[in-house]
Amino acid sequence: MIKKQPIGVFDSGVGGLTALTHLAALLPDEDLLYLGDTARVPYGNRSPETIKLYARQLTEFLLERSVKVIVVACNTISSIAMVEIEKISPVPVIGVIKPAVATALQVSSQGIGIIGTRATIQSRAYENEIDQMRDGKNILVMSEACPLFVPLVEEGWHDHLAAYTVAREYLSPLKSANIDVLILGCTHYPLLKKVLGEIMPGVKLIDSGEEAATLTAKLIQIDQLVLRRTELLAPRSIECYVTDMTPTVLRIAQQFLGLPADSVHEITI
Amino acid sequence: MIKKQPIGVFDSGVGGLTALTHLAALLPDEDLLYLGDTARVPYGNRSPETIKLYARQLTEFLLERSVKVIVVACNTISSIAMVEIEKISPVPVIGVIKPAVATALQVSSQGIGIIGTRATIQSRAYENEIDQMRDGKNILVMSEACPLFVPLVEEGWHDHLAAYTVAREYLSPLKSANIDVLILGCTHYPLLKKVLGEIMPGVKLIDSGEEAATLTAKLIQIDQLVLRRTELLAPRSIECYVTDMTPTVLRIAQQFLGLPADSVHEITI
Repeated sequence: MIKKQPIGVFDSGVGGLTALTHLAALLPDEDLLYLGDTARVPYGNRSPETIKLYARQLTEFLLERSVKVIVVACNTISSIAMVEIEKISPVPVIGVIKPAVATALQVSSQGIGIIGTRATIQSRAYENEIDQMRDGKNILVMSEACPLFVPLVEEGWHDHLAAYTVAREYLSPLKSANIDVLILGCTHYPLLKKVLGEIMPGVKLIDSGEEAATLTAKLIQIDQLVLRRTELLAPRSIECYVTDMTPTVLRIAQQFLGLPADSVHEITI
Repeated sequence: MIKKQPIGVFDSGVGGLTALTHLAALLPDEDLLYLGDTARVPYGNRSPETIKLYARQLTEFLLERSVKVIVVACNTISSIAMVEIEKISPVPVIGVIKPAVATALQVSSQGIGIIGTRATIQSRAYENEIDQMRDGKNILVMSEACPLFVPLVEEGWHDHLAAYTVAREYLSPLKSANIDVLILGCTHYPLLKKVLGEIMPGVKLIDSGEEAATLTAKLIQIDQLVLRRTELLAPRSIECYVTDMTPTVLRIAQQFLGLPADSVHEITI
């Protein structure tokens, strides 16, 4: 691995751009390469076998482009396919589960709630990680699948009446329990922070994509892989690759990252 | 084409099973072959180029299995890719747009509303078909994209409070207009009939999948392709192929069609 290589980030769609935005701010000199599988998004209701197959294809694409580290910005993929990805990757792989769990265990004194897609919740990846990292800490853990949150966010109804109705229904069991931390186990969910915050007052919301970005920045500092832009002439580049170029992709890439349209490329994998 | 060949039906996912159910009832002696692209569903927000590519792949799969007619049970594909499918198919192809429009024009005396996915509505396929078939009939036509209806149905929230909140918002412009017919331009929407009927009282709801099944039955009678089961020994078979086998697929195949699990097969295309 050499410093000059880009950091690779992949996701099932465009939700991972929230994590890329955090990375871009934390590491202003690094080249970033994003891959979103917009032709096959969403992964959240697919079978584990299919998710693993797609994850291997996305990983291979980034490895061919010689990234120095891979950030798996998708909770569904991080829950199901980390072992498969690590098996084929010679460079470090950072998922969203571990960093979110580490922060949740630090912050919580009563109980941790987890929300995500059906695949993420059914995998029990967050619960398993908490069990491995809790170090004897006796704390309540509860999870709830919220399959309608992604379509609501993609419809732009972040604070629509329907978002409150749906969120109240999904969060009802978590609200009755005594949790003080809620892990947003899907990169789309930070956009629902206003609604979630109003329904769960006093509960700390943890953005799994932001935690993964923070850990990535730390890791490449520890490994002395941080690039100082002064070493080179060209300005830092951010390139986005998607498997289906839709108007929504372009709009979101521009809104999140201020990327020009010619930084977004359609590819086949 | 010979009578003994099966009728092929394809869809982006499992929604087309509503049309298959109607076909199975109308044509009790025919062999039926269903293909649902559950690994890449939903198509509704994808680009036209990607939808056309996927449609060609699905068509080729059915043609390799020597179907005598192809029913495109998906509104998104029928709206975007009929020309591409007809170009490569030596057997008749029936989409959902034309049959629904024909019935709507017969029934309506005031105005026709159309609801569907974003891709279906943006394609203006229903409006274009109405313009070609209206034969001078002066009638109001309005359409509205309802991207949250499919996830609501897939969540099983057909008559949940959230379904009413979402439907009221989407249908509000149609409700203010003077329509007397509403085309359900997506195979999932018939499952929302209760909600839609309560919000739009007195408006006739047209199920595009049911209309396509009715037309298919008529067509194979006219072409003298109807199979009489007495000609053969084996009982009629219904086979389902999907590109991703999820618990939802099995549950829906059993619920809709009472199919045994061994009639549902996973394939790669």
